[in-house]
Parts: sequence; C-alpha cells; structure tokens
Amino acid sequence: MKKYVYSFEEGKEEIQDLKKRVEILGGKGANLAEMSGMGVPVPPGFTISTEACHEFSKSKEYPEGMQDQVDEQLKKLEENMGKKLGDTEDPLLVSVRSGAAKSMPGMMDTVLNLGLNDVSVEGLSKKTENPRFAWDAYRRFIQMFGDVVMGVAHSKFEEVLEDIKNTKGVENDTELDTEDLKNVVERYKKVVKEAKGEDFPQEPKIQLQKSIEAVFGSWSNPRAIAYRRINEITGLLGTAVNVQTMVFGNMGDTSGTGVAFTRNPSTGESKIYGEFLMNAQGEDVVAGIRTPKPITELEQVMPDCYKQFIDIANNLEAHYKDMQDMEFTIQEGKLFFLQTRTGKRTATAAVKIAVDMVEENLIDKETAVMRVEPNALDQLLHPTLDLIAKEKATILAKGLPASPGAAVGQVVFSAEDADKEAKEGKDVILVRIETSPEDIEGMHAAKGILTARGGMTSHAAVVARGMGKCCVAGCGDIKINEKEKIFAVDDITVKEGDYISLDGSTGEVIQGELPTKDPKLAGNFETLMEWADSLRTLNIRTNADTPKDASTAIKFGAEGIGLCRTEHMFFEGERIKAVREMILSEELEGRKKALDKLLPYQKEDFVGLFKAMGERPVTIRLLDPPLHEFLPQEEKDIQEISEDMNVPVEKLKQKISDLHEFNPMLGHRGCRLGISYPEITEMQAKAICQAAKETGAIPEIMIPLVGNVKEFEDQKAVVKKACEDILADKPYKIGTMIEVPRGALTADEIAEHADFFSFGTNDLTQMTCGFSRDDAGKFLKEYQEKGIYEKDPFQALDQDGVGQLVKMAAEKGKKVKPDLKLGICGEHGGEPSSIEFCHKVGLSYVSCSPFRIPIARLAAAQAAISSR
Amino acid sequence: MKKYVYSFEEGKEEIQDLKKRVEILGGKGANLAEMSGMGVPVPPGFTISTEACHEFSKSKEYPEGMQDQVDEQLKKLEENMGKKLGDTEDPLLVSVRSGAAKSMPGMMDTVLNLGLNDVSVEGLSKKTENPRFAWDAYRRFIQMFGDVVMGVAHSKFEEVLEDIKNTKGVENDTELDTEDLKNVVERYKKVVKEAKGEDFPQEPKIQLQKSIEAVFGSWSNPRAIAYRRINEITGLLGTAVNVQTMVFGNMGDTSGTGVAFTRNPSTGESKIYGEFLMNAQGEDVVAGIRTPKPITELEQVMPDCYKQFIDIANNLEAHYKDMQDMEFTIQEGKLFFLQTRTGKRTATAAVKIAVDMVEENLIDKETAVMRVEPNALDQLLHPTLDLIAKEKATILAKGLPASPGAAVGQVVFSAEDADKEAKEGKDVILVRIETSPEDIEGMHAAKGILTARGGMTSHAAVVARGMGKCCVAGCGDIKINEKEKIFAVDDITVKEGDYISLDGSTGEVIQGELPTKDPKLAGNFETLMEWADSLRTLNIRTNADTPKDASTAIKFGAEGIGLCRTEHMFFEGERIKAVREMILSEELEGRKKALDKLLPYQKEDFVGLFKAMGERPVTIRLLDPPLHEFLPQEEKDIQEISEDMNVPVEKLKQKISDLHEFNPMLGHRGCRLGISYPEITEMQAKAICQAAKETGAIPEIMIPLVGNVKEFEDQKAVVKKACEDILADKPYKIGTMIEVPRGALTADEIAEHADFFSFGTNDLTQMTCGFSRDDAGKFLKEYQEKGIYEKDPFQALDQDGVGQLVKMAAEKGKKVKPDLKLGICGEHGGEPSSIEFCHKVGLSYVSCSPFRIPIARLAAAQAAISSR
Repeated sequence: MKKYVYSFEEGKEEIQDLKKRVEILGGKGANLAEMSGMGVPVPPGFTISTEACHEFSKSKEYPEGMQDQVDEQLKKLEENMGKKLGDTEDPLLVSVRSGAAKSMPGMMDTVLNLGLNDVSVEGLSKKTENPRFAWDAYRRFIQMFGDVVMGVAHSKFEEVLEDIKNTKGVENDTELDTEDLKNVVERYKKVVKEAKGEDFPQEPKIQLQKSIEAVFGSWSNPRAIAYRRINEITGLLGTAVNVQTMVFGNMGDTSGTGVAFTRNPSTGESKIYGEFLMNAQGEDVVAGIRTPKPITELEQVMPDCYKQFIDIANNLEAHYKDMQDMEFTIQEGKLFFLQTRTGKRTATAAVKIAVDMVEENLIDKETAVMRVEPNALDQLLHPTLDLIAKEKATILAKGLPASPGAAVGQVVFSAEDADKEAKEGKDVILVRIETSPEDIEGMHAAKGILTARGGMTSHAAVVARGMGKCCVAGCGDIKINEKEKIFAVDDITVKEGDYISLDGSTGEVIQGELPTKDPKLAGNFETLMEWADSLRTLNIRTNADTPKDASTAIKFGAEGIGLCRTEHMFFEGERIKAVREMILSEELEGRKKALDKLLPYQKEDFVGLFKAMGERPVTIRLLDPPLHEFLPQEEKDIQEISEDMNVPVEKLKQKISDLHEFNPMLGHRGCRLGISYPEITEMQAKAICQAAKETGAIPEIMIPLVGNVKEFEDQKAVVKKACEDILADKPYKIGTMIEVPRGALTADEIAEHADFFSFGTNDLTQMTCGFSRDDAGKFLKEYQEKGIYEKDPFQALDQDGVGQLVKMAAEKGKKVKPDLKLGICGEHGGEPSSIEFCHKVGLSYVSCSPFRIPIARLAAAQAAISSR
Repeated sequence: MKKYVYSFEEGKEEIQDLKKRVEILGGKGANLAEMSGMGVPVPPGFTISTEACHEFSKSKEYPEGMQDQVDEQLKKLEENMGKKLGDTEDPLLVSVRSGAAKSMPGMMDTVLNLGLNDVSVEGLSKKTENPRFAWDAYRRFIQMFGDVVMGVAHSKFEEVLEDIKNTKGVENDTELDTEDLKNVVERYKKVVKEAKGEDFPQEPKIQLQKSIEAVFGSWSNPRAIAYRRINEITGLLGTAVNVQTMVFGNMGDTSGTGVAFTRNPSTGESKIYGEFLMNAQGEDVVAGIRTPKPITELEQVMPDCYKQFIDIANNLEAHYKDMQDMEFTIQEGKLFFLQTRTGKRTATAAVKIAVDMVEENLIDKETAVMRVEPNALDQLLHPTLDLIAKEKATILAKGLPASPGAAVGQVVFSAEDADKEAKEGKDVILVRIETSPEDIEGMHAAKGILTARGGMTSHAAVVARGMGKCCVAGCGDIKINEKEKIFAVDDITVKEGDYISLDGSTGEVIQGELPTKDPKLAGNFETLMEWADSLRTLNIRTNADTPKDASTAIKFGAEGIGLCRTEHMFFEGERIKAVREMILSEELEGRKKALDKLLPYQKEDFVGLFKAMGERPVTIRLLDPPLHEFLPQEEKDIQEISEDMNVPVEKLKQKISDLHEFNPMLGHRGCRLGISYPEITEMQAKAICQAAKETGAIPEIMIPLVGNVKEFEDQKAVVKKACEDILADKPYKIGTMIEVPRGALTADEIAEHADFFSFGTNDLTQMTCGFSRDDAGKFLKEYQEKGIYEKDPFQALDQDGVGQLVKMAAEKGKKVKPDLKLGICGEHGGEPSSIEFCHKVGLSYVSCSPFRIPIARLAAAQAAISSR
C-alpha cells in the first residue's frame, strides 16, 4: 500500500532527501516536518502528500488506502493531544491548509477551527470557560468553510454580520457578545442552506473530508492554473494538505499571534522584522482593524516568549541558511511556530541578503549567486512607479509588459508629434496602434511607448527594450483613433496632451501623472555581479545599434556587440532620402549613386560604434528588412515624398505595389537582398572596413537569413572583395545568422565557409514553430492557458523544438570547424532559462539588449554553477 | 601524366565502363569510340576529355600535358590517313565538335574543314581536281570559324555573299564559280580582320587550338548555362571535344549525306525514318534550299550503300537496345557514320518504342519502364496547341508553365464575368493579377487561367493543376488594368472579349484563336502503366476536393485521396454566407448556429466523395486557411455583403481589420483555428462521420499545421468525441499533416497519438527555407540562375534541406509506431525526383493532382527499380 499520509515527525524521518520531501509534502508540510524534527514547538499534525492530490486530480477520488491512512493519523493525533474531534467535552480542533512545492496564492488557503459543530462548540465553551471565544470560533469556522469549501459568497456572510452589528448599533465584531454570536451562527447556517441547498455539515469527519477535497480541487481552479502559467511554474504533481492541531492566540492577554521575517524583506537589512497582536487570531493581523505592533515590542510584553522566539528564528535561519518567513501563535503563554518558509523579498533585499550571508560565512559565493532570481534584477535597473500612488490611481488597461520600467508623460499619437513635443521639453508617451521603423526617432524622443497591437517581440517591444525604454505593447483594450488623436478605454477617453503613466514591468496603463522612483545600483549589486562574472563561462554581448546604446551596455558589463542592426541607421534625416532614391532606381548606376551618398553616413555610424566599444568585438549585421519598409504607406506621406523627391506619385505607388509582399517575414529580405543587389552589400562592407581601418577595430560582418551555403558563399565573395580592397591583410571575420531552419539543418555546409554563427532565435522560432510573432498574439495566450506551450516561445527559447535546431546546428558546425564561434542574438539572449540552454549546448556568448546584461551575467553564472 | 586525349579506338578499349566513358568522352565521343570498336565505318579521329574542359574552365589554360597529347594523336591520325594537316599536296582536313555527357544545344557546335588555308586550299584543289569544291570548302571554313570561334557576326559574312551574288546576278551559292569563291574568301578574310583586328589564322595548328578553346569556352557561355538550368542538367564536368577526319558528301554524284532514326521519333513506328541529299554537305540538308529525300529512296540511288546502312543501323539499335539517331556521309561511294546517339522522341513515340521493344524481346519490362521520362507523359494527358499554327502566331508573353495543356478563349477579367460568359456557352480565359479563393467558381468556368503574379505554387497554379486546367502564372510582362478590362504587353493591347491562346506546358501566351489537339491515351500507354503498377511499391493517391476530381483521378489510376481540402467547399453559393455569419459572431452560440447551417452541406460533400471513391481510402483535411480569406477585401464587395447580411459596413470593416495579418502564412490558421474555435472542428468531424456512416467509408481525418503534440491531442479529443457519438465502434483514423518544421522535429511525440502522417511539403518548404511561395517568385529565378538552388524547391523537393526534416520525421515516427502510415500531399507528390526520394525514405504513398497520377505511377516504378 502506497503511503499518502505522514505525521510531521514521519515526514522528516521517512523522506530524508529535502528536494523529494518538498516535492511530496509541499513546502509547508516539509517545513513543518523539519521544524518538528528540530524540536521547534509546532502544533502536531499530519500532511497528505502531493501524490494523493495528483491521483485525485485524475480520478476525482481519493487514491486507494488514503482514507484509512487519514483515519489512522487522526486517531494518533487524538491520542497524542488527549482530545477527540467533535468531542462534547474537550474537542480537538484542527486547521486544514494547502501547500504545494512552490508557494501558490491561487489555491485554497486555509480552513481553521475545523471540528466545531452545534455540540462540540459547547464542549469548547466549557473547557475554555470562554463561551464567547467558542462561539466566535464556530462562526469563523462556518464562514471560512462556507466560503472556501462550499463556495458560498463571502459577502453573504458579511451581510449577516453587518446586519447584526447594525441592529445592535456597534461597529466592531469584538463588541458582539455570546448571544449575538449564537445568532450569527444560526443565520450563517441558513445562508449556507439557502445558497447550496444543503445543511452545513455537522459531522467533523465529513468537514475534514470536504476540506481535503476542496484543497485538492483548488489545484485545478482557473486562478491557480493562471498563476502557474504567469509564474512559469511547471512540473508539480499537485498540492499537499496539512492537517494541524489548532492553537489560539485569542485566548486572553497571554495569548497572541504574529508574522515575522528573520531579515527585512524589503531592504534586506539583517534585523528581525515583523509584527504581532495580543489576544488575536492570525486573520486579525491581516484584517487591519487593530494595528499590529512591531515584533521587537514583544520583548516588553512577553520577554520569555520573545527570547524563545528570537532563538528559534535564529536557529531556523542558520538551519535553512536563508531568510525565513515565520508565523507564530502564543496560546496562554506558550509559543508555537505554525510555519516557516523561505521569505519572499524584493530584488534589493535579495541582493543584499545574498551578499551579507557570504560575509557572515553562512553561504558561499556560488550559493549567493544562485539565490537571486536573474529577472528580478530588472527592478533595479529601471525607474519604477511609486506603488502607493499607483494603488490609488485608475488603471485604465493592461497590456503586455513589453519593456520594463516606468514612464510618465503626455499622450501623443504620432512619431513626429513625439519628436516635436519632446524638443519643446515635454515628457511624452507615444501611443500607436503599432510602430514601424519610420517611428524610430519618435520612439527615441518619447519617455514610453504604448501600442494596441503586437506581442512581446513586436517592433515596438524589441526596439523599446533595445533602448531600455518603458513599453506596454498589445494593449487591445484601448481603442485608438489616430485621426482624432484620442484613445478610449470603455467609457474613458484620453486626449492628446493628457497625462498617463505606464508600468512596463506589469503592462499597466494608468490615468494621470504618477511619481516615479529612480533605480540605485548599490555596492552589493556590484559585488554580486563580480562574483557572477568570476563564475560564468559564457561571454555576454549586447544588441546595440548606436554609440549611446553601446556605452550604456558597457556600463552594464557588455563584453562586445553581438548584433548591430544596420537598418535603423537608414532612417535618420537625409539618409532615408538616399535609401528611397536607391529603391526607386531601376538601373544599377542609379542605385550605386544613391548608395554612394549613404556610404559616408554608414562609415561614421561604424566609427562611432567601434570607438565606443574599444577593443571589444563588434558584430554588424548587413541590411535585413524588405525594401518596402523604407517606403511610405500612407497616402499623405506618399504625396509628400513624391514632391520631396520629385518622383511622380504614380511611380512611387507602382513601386510600393511592386514591392508589396504577402508574407514579408518570408519575403525578399536578408541576404536575398544582397544577392539581388550586391551593391548594397558592397557599400555596407566598405563602410564597415573603412571605419575599421580608421579605428583599428576587427569587424565581424554578419550575413543575415542564410538558408543555403551558396547564399553565404555568394555574399561572402562580395564582402571579401570589398574588405580586401580596404583592409588588405588586416584581420576581419565573416559569419552568418542561423535563423532559417534550413540554415540549421545544413550548418555543416555553412560552417566550412563561415567564421562564426549567431543564432537569430526570433526568426528561427517564427519559422520553426510556423507562427509570425506579429500575428501569434491572437492565439499564443490561449496556447499557454491550454498548456500547449508552457512559456511564450518568443520569450523563453522553445528548447524541445527550436532548441533541437540550435543544438543540431551547433554540433554540425563544430564538427566541421571545432573553433567555430557560436552566439545567440535573438531576444532569448537575455532570458535566464534560454541562457542556461545556450550554456549547455556550448555557445560562446549570448547577446541581449543593454538593460538585460546584468540579468544575463547572473543567469550565465547560474547556468555554469548548475551544470557542474 | 593524366590522359586527356583518346583516339576513338583507345576510348573503347581503355574506358570499359560505359557510364564512365560517357562522362569522360561525352555522348558523342563515347559513341564514336563504341562505333569504331564495333567495326562501323567511322572517319578516324580522337576525343579530348571533359576533364580537360573542367580544368580549362578553372584555369583558362590547357591542363598540363594536354597539348603534347593532342600533338601526338594528330600525328598518329596523319600517319593513319597518309595526309598532313595544312599539306600543300593532299591536306588532312578535320572537324571539331563539342559533345558533353548530355546533349546541349546551347554550346558551340561544329567547325568543319579545319586545316584549310591559302596554301592547302590549292593542295586540296589539285588532289580532288575540283577547285570549286576546294574554294567552297575554304570559304565555308572561314565563315564557320569566324562565326563560332572568333565571334564575328554571321550576318557580316552573309552580307558579303549576298553582295557577290547580286553583283553577279545569281540567286544560289551553287551558281558561284571558283573565281567568285576566291573573291568571297578574300573578302571574308577582310571581314575577320576588320571585326577582330587580327588576321584569319593560317596556321592549321593554331586553327585547331583556337577551335578547341572555343568549344571549352562555350561550356560556360550564358546560353549553355541557361540550358542546363532549364533542363535541370547538373553534375557534369564539362564538354569533350571531338576532332575527326573530314569526309565530304559533296564530291559528286556518288557522294551524299543524311540523317536517320532507326524508328519514327514522332510516332514510334518501327521503321527506318530519315532523309538524305546527294552531292551535299550536312548543312545543306538543314538549310532547306534543296529538299531532302526520304531515306528509303536511297535504296534506288545507291543500293549497296543503302543495304550497308540498314545493316549497320539495325546493328546499332540492337547493340544499344534503343532507338538511334544517326548521321552519315557517303564520300565517293564509301559510307561513313559520323555519329549515332539515342534518338529524342515524343512521349507517344517513347511509350510505343518502349512497349514494342519488350515485345521484340530487345529489352525487359523494367528497362521499358525506365525508358520513358515520367514528366513527358504530361503531353499525353492534356490537349495541346497545334504546333504549326503556333509557329505562325504572335507570342505575346511568356509566364510560368503552371498547369499544362492548352486553352483557347475570350479574355475576361473577373471570376464573375468568367462564370457569366461561360454560362452563355463561351470559351473564356480568366486573366487576373492573382487569384484568391473567391475566384474558384470563375476558375472552374474558364478554359484557362492567366495571372500576372505568383509562382508555380501560387493559388492559381495549385488550383488549376488540381482541376487539370491550363494555367500560365506569374506572367509579369502583361500589365493588367482590371478596371478598364484590358491588358497590355509592350504596345499590344488585349481587350475583354479578344481571343488568346495559352500553352500551359511552355508558359506561352499567344494572340488569337489557335486550333488544339485532344490527347489520345493509346493501348501502349495502358500497357506501360500496368507494368509500372506491377513494379512500384508506393501507393498513388490524389489531391481531390470534389466527386468530379475524384472520378477523374480514379480514371488515371488513383488508389485513394491523400488530401481533400475542405476550404473550397466553404465558398459555394449559400455556404459562404453561413461562413461569414460564423466569423462575424462574437459569441459561441452564434457561431454554432451558423455552423449548423454548414453541416448538411459539408456532409453531402463528403457523401459525394466517399461514393466516388468506393472502398478507396479518403483523407480529409480540416479547415486550414485563416478566416480573413472568407471575408471580402474590395470596398464594393464589402458594401454588397453588408447589405446582403444586414451587418453594418463598419462592423464588417472592423472585423476585416481585426483579422488582418502581417504574415497570413504564419498566422491564425490550421489547427490553431480549431483550437480557438473547437466548434468548427466539431462540425467538420460530425459531417465526415455522418457521411461515413451513410456510405460505410472509413474516413481518415487530418489535422493541419500541427507543430506541437499538444495541439494534436487537443484537436484529436474534439474529433474523437464527435466520431464516437456518431460512429460508435466503427473504424476511423485521425492523423496529421507534418508541414511545420517543429512538427517534424517532434514527430516522435506526435506519432504516439497519430494514426498517420502526411507531409505537407508546400508549407514545410516555405517554413524550412524561410520563403513564402507567393513572394519567392521575386528572387527564386535568380537563385536558380546563380545555382543557389538547382531546382525550384516548390517543384522538386529540396532533398538536402526540407528532405532532412521529412526523413527525420519518418524515422522518428516509425521508431515510436512502426506501422505508422506515411504519405506526402504537397505539390511534390507528383514530381518524379521527389517521388524517388519518398520511395527511399520509406513513405507509404504519394498524393498528387489527378492529371499527374500517371506520372507518379511511372516515377514510383522507376524509383522502385532504381533502388533495387
């Protein structure tokens, strides 16, 4: 017979392996077991395993033998406590709590005081000689059980309570006497009967059974599922159920309850932090009717208890070697620990605690590095909205948290307006249905960007992250009218010039002008980063197109540029004219003339980049997007450009129509452009080489979208000729993006000719999964909800699918050329789980946007430690 | 020292392996060697190998040792013939001919009479006692050498000849006497000097060297390269050069020349076929000034020669076991064979000859099956344009030969017009910039389809091939003005109602109404197909959506339906209204109501198909295209539909805008639709099952675009529920398309749940290569010219890239489920090289459009034979 139920003592003894114990007993159960074993005063009880929940989820029945085991453990508990569940003299009361291997607020939390009924309430009353306490406990039990187990709306109970208080003319629950509470109990039972058509169960074993089933059931409720999806929690069996003897903090002045952290979870300060209330139950601390007192004041109130508490807290931290979050209750002078767990903390606190604990010789540097969630660092690198102000403000809508940080400003609806208003010194938020490369300057000028369409890797999102600029994307709830320069959310209309605030870390769009807080990179941060750098083997590069981005990236620790996109350079000022002139030329000569105009600009771009990067390597990708992106789409712009360039509108329209593509993503772009128009490749190669000659840099020239070795050979020949003419024997490298599945499949052929591969996992994901990142927004959320993809494959590399191709290409490439340099420059280069994958498959570096570099450094160190 | 030059005798002796001999000596050289060895009277000579050409192409120099070997062979030839090159008494004259391993009209062909110069012409004159012959030979030599070796325009020589004839007042060359010809020679030499700035070379060894270099050079000329690309000739080293003693058919009445085939190359009739001219050179036969006589008449003129000729011809055919194409010359009563090679033949002849030869016990059935080029069968299955009429007509433009056959009719510019005019009994050609699913009915009604945009696998092309209807696609030279209902090619304008003719096998668009010829499937065809069927192991299915297509396919030998697309069914008549109603419903209930209207139609569709197919398996693919394809795009249509459906224009436009996709190919389609709207899958599954129940069919339900096993599981559950409700325990299958790279990569996971895989190689090619078939037209032609892809990957499966995924998926699938049924239903299912690949990787069947089934049957048989 499989064992599903463990007393707290058995848990510790029978499941030695801590990881396994957490898996089977859940975090809470494992900690209760551990504490019992350590001699910490814990109210006795038992835990029903996550495996039982797993079985229950499948069959909707208790697994075989579980009921007997529960009965047996209950019997032992009754013997141990000398009390019996439902007893008319001295009833045993228990709590029932859920507890998965990872903390999950989405699930059913707690039922307290279980075991009370119309008879045992009298027993409790007699035994405690406190009828009011007994009836209050009973009414609390009915309310909790009714709400969380039976599904009766919480408000229905509140209405009864309000009604009785009003009738009596009092304000607080505490002012109700025993008779009032008996009345409450009667009416609560009616509420249950009316709402559910059945009586509140009097039989304690039924109460227990229903509570256990409710905990099991809550594992699969939509909130819990959504929580797991959002927090990327996968691979768990289910939740455990903890049944524990009740202790009461509300049994008089020598009773009390509280919560505390061994260190400050907000700042990380190494000092006990928490609060308590005397003569109160845990829920009273949360309810906010009485103001809890700082934990340190307990010393005055109950010095012995306080001393015992502090000793145990210190022991627990030393035992777990991490900051603990504890719940305790004092029942008539006796201290009980109800729970201890690793405390949640802010990023600031996480960094400080990790560094402090190394200095305290509690943990080593590797452990410290493993302690900080890389993504949490994001909080430290961007300004944030003032949380208190945010709580009071109106959240207009919620989009995708496309680029973190906060932005506050006046709304504008076009890139030109953004540019204009910003030049007048205003803070503006650029609001667009979607952005396109033409909007780059406006995006630069804006404090933040809000789009109605597009996913986490839409143009707006990618560019904003590159700029380290706050962006909320794909906010479908806002209806933009660009002509009238307004947007609406339900019945609220926001006009041009109105203030809004964006939270790029949550995706929230907030009405009005909220205060923000600037990030502070403390010394601890630097220390942790240094440790990470000493542990990682992956190099960290950045995706940067401008000297400014490059400098930011270096500040954050970039060791090179992994991807410099050259197309953004084509949009600035006079350049776009030359680009359009080139596109509109039917003859080679005309194109060359236009390209000659671009050459000096391009060269200066690269000189700037090379100078900013110093000795660090710089990989420059040749022109990638289809040419139609450089032509206007709007009638108005076509007219304007027609006049500007002195080209008939008809001709312009004809060209736009000729260049139209059904699927631009799969169109005439990347190296295909260079093969059709070698003169473009030639100009870019020349500009790179001239800049390299001037600065002494060793350029890495990257040919995009290669799917066939012959494409690479063709373009390599063009680049090589240009380079040899200018650089003669000076070193330079020519490599390629692996971003087309066929490129990965034939990587061995390509490796024979290429100096390096850089995995363009954005495009590789699109083509391998067969969905465009701009269009997938329509179904990817649903896909995640249904568990088809556990994570958004545009954010976290799809290791099962796309990863196969990355691995295959890396292996095929290295087989042909063992010293082939391998990197990744897709969005995934800054995402921790993807970085771990890159480490495992043997890449040399990851490249990400400047603001994600610290995250990447930490994730790379964690990957190195984990794979030891 | 490597051997580059072989006398004809050495060729046969030293290179025993025939394949290798052809590779090294070229087809012509190998045959001359073979004939020499067989004792056929061949003028002696030698062959310079293709390897020499290969070396020359790289270094632009003769490979080491070659010059010496040429000199040596020439010396032996002079000794053998008792004549010397350039001799003043009795000069040796030679011909120089190119000859690659495959016949290639694009290269330099022939230089005759080499060895003549101002001195040796006199020697020839004396020796033959025929000064006119000698001087005529000399002027012919200068003209040929000047043209093909030195690159002097042919017309310049013709001008001189015309001038001299005019001056003398004669019409034919034959009327010029010796003095006239001396004059011609003088002026020809001046032409050369003026055009090239150098003298016509007098030194015979220089003449020979330059001729050899010219042949080598012609291997790389653009015409030859284009020819190889168009005819998919790859893997050859270069061309060989044949240097052969001249014999003359123009040395009097006992001399003559001719060409002949051992069987009729047009009909296949087993009877000598050819023509000859007495006292003439080969070029005279071609020039058409004198009318050649049928070869049989030679019996009267020179009975001994004829008998010898017939004996040798029979010997050659018996030796090569194939129909021979021979050139011969009779010099003063002595017969010489200049060449023999496998004769080109029409498809009709190929089939008849193959069948006849089996009956004559000359070859076995396997050989017969290997003898017919599968693609050539296409000619036999479609009507064709009358070739003689076509030669006289104006070719307006040339597009892609998207669907073979011929079509003649009056031009219309919209699907509605096509439908209307066709109903009035007119033959119409539908001319569109591109077609969309809305045009289906008009395409059905038209005799042929002409589009300005789109490739070989564009909508128009795919649908037309499916219908067996002539289509010329992507004809960029025609400028269509749909509003004014005209199209223009250069300065020719074609109006609505004008007649045009299409040749779907060549892509030609011809002005006017040409006569056509209907196909005749003779008994030989049936016989060959039976043999093929007995030899092949692959099953052949068809892609068919209607009972009509299904019946056609069965007539051609289809053994099942591999792909029934259901989306076409959504466009007919009332259905499209219900489809739009579904799309416009925001609520599930509304969608279900609309789907309920579609259900009976769908069921009847499937009943029709199942009935047409009888016991044969039918694979039905669930809805695949994105929903926006079912909504109108044109303002006019939006207005109309808005009124028709009583839906506000604004709402319609909003929905169209909501459904807009950046890359529809990678958008919300395939199983993604079914996952978002399970009710669509449910309706289709119900319709299929109801039809199966009614007809007793065992349906194979195919879920499209699966890239993730969980997508498949999700949709399988929906289908299964619908099936079980209707079919109870009756058998049915649920499988998937493998068309997304990720689907192939994770085929092992998918195979656990799927009954079958069908490779959708159209989409798989698009995603693996990263180019959309609708957009790739812009660069794929250039890619083929540059050799980046040898063949259009949308026509012939890209075995190196896409093929890897097919092979991988087949292997992964079979590993998990050894009896997994595997098929292919992309366009490649009807293409011979792809069929061979499918055979090799172990697929169970290929599926193609009805009209390609015979091709597939033959190709499958050839694959089975080749892989033995």
